[in-house]
Amino acid sequence: MRVVVPHRVADPKTRLAERLDPDERAAFARAMLDDVLDAVETAGHDPEVLATEPFDAPVPVTVDDRPLTGAVNGVLDESLPGTPVAVVMADLPLATPDALSRLFETAGDVVAAPGRGGGTNALVVRHPEFRVDYHGASFRDHRRACEAVGATLGTVDSYRLGTDVDEPADLVEVLLHGEGAARRWLDARGFDVEAGEGRVRVTRDDPG
Amino acid sequence: MRVVVPHRVADPKTRLAERLDPDERAAFARAMLDDVLDAVETAGHDPEVLATEPFDAPVPVTVDDRPLTGAVNGVLDESLPGTPVAVVMADLPLATPDALSRLFETAGDVVAAPGRGGGTNALVVRHPEFRVDYHGASFRDHRRACEAVGATLGTVDSYRLGTDVDEPADLVEVLLHGEGAARRWLDARGFDVEAGEGRVRVTRDDPG
Repeated sequence: MRVVVPHRVADPKTRLAERLDPDERAAFARAMLDDVLDAVETAGHDPEVLATEPFDAPVPVTVDDRPLTGAVNGVLDESLPGTPVAVVMADLPLATPDALSRLFETAGDVVAAPGRGGGTNALVVRHPEFRVDYHGASFRDHRRACEAVGATLGTVDSYRLGTDVDEPADLVEVLLHGEGAARRWLDARGFDVEAGEGRVRVTRDDPG
Repeated sequence: MRVVVPHRVADPKTRLAERLDPDERAAFARAMLDDVLDAVETAGHDPEVLATEPFDAPVPVTVDDRPLTGAVNGVLDESLPGTPVAVVMADLPLATPDALSRLFETAGDVVAAPGRGGGTNALVVRHPEFRVDYHGASFRDHRRACEAVGATLGTVDSYRLGTDVDEPADLVEVLLHGEGAARRWLDARGFDVEAGEGRVRVTRDDPG
């Protein structure tokens, strides 16, 4: 199985701009990517990065500057018959080898891990005609795309794979459940979880 | 194993008030409860409801008008030695028998299903000294409570159990992934998912 991890190199994670400056966003996105690559490797696969531009990565990088959907479909277009392709988003710092193994081992021509708000955080594609569309409610669109080409759809029920980190509120998830580079990055920069009278929120203290 | 489902009878789900009137919130909360009870039964257990006041339920009801933490700890105080107690929140309309079976079968003196934002959406308690505290970041507090009494903590990695429905944005999850009474309730009242240029959102058409 090929395991492809898309990564936006320049100006990633814009919805975190309220809490992180541009350099911090790039560093935090890189820490999340490293967590995902580590988890894929520990699950027994050799990940590749599908990047928007060249960057210094510890694994093979394919550069494709198209938007996500086009770039991933470019990979699917060129995949070898009989070789499944997994697409695992880079912003899943809670991903564990166990959760990924459940994804990789679930039966189906296509297997999807739903993400919060209708997204598709991870996919395994074993059907030659299936193509992705990450725009909008992609989980629903991927279900319809399976029906359109006669592909069976499996799903993996995972909180860890369902938790993509896009917004400041998502940092709570990393602080409470993360165990890798992204968690350490936030800890080192003074982020913490505060649970007062109301809802749980993320605080930041200057550690210096 | 006892399986207890706490249910707030009067004025439930206040954070949905923006989209549902009080009668609708009560009916929707009841539909979610019914989905959870069905899933527990299909998983092979006899659920009980722990309710804030008497109401017409298809399963045994214990009434305790204390806030959630006190009421659940009342159940734990009176549980029989050697009989595990599971506590499954009533606002988990995506819960499936499979997801609940994974919860019930996971090893640990205490087993928790994390919920979005630091919550604890479902628990199995097999340790006589463990007590709950649902206030604030309860998952972290429950982890600490396990350490304090020397209980091992298992976790179950489930998107379905991790998805509690509190806010309007959560309705997207029910519309996309629900299969039971809560999903049908929303469908019948004209709720739908709209995925335009921006983020996925919930719409409502007057079906009449």
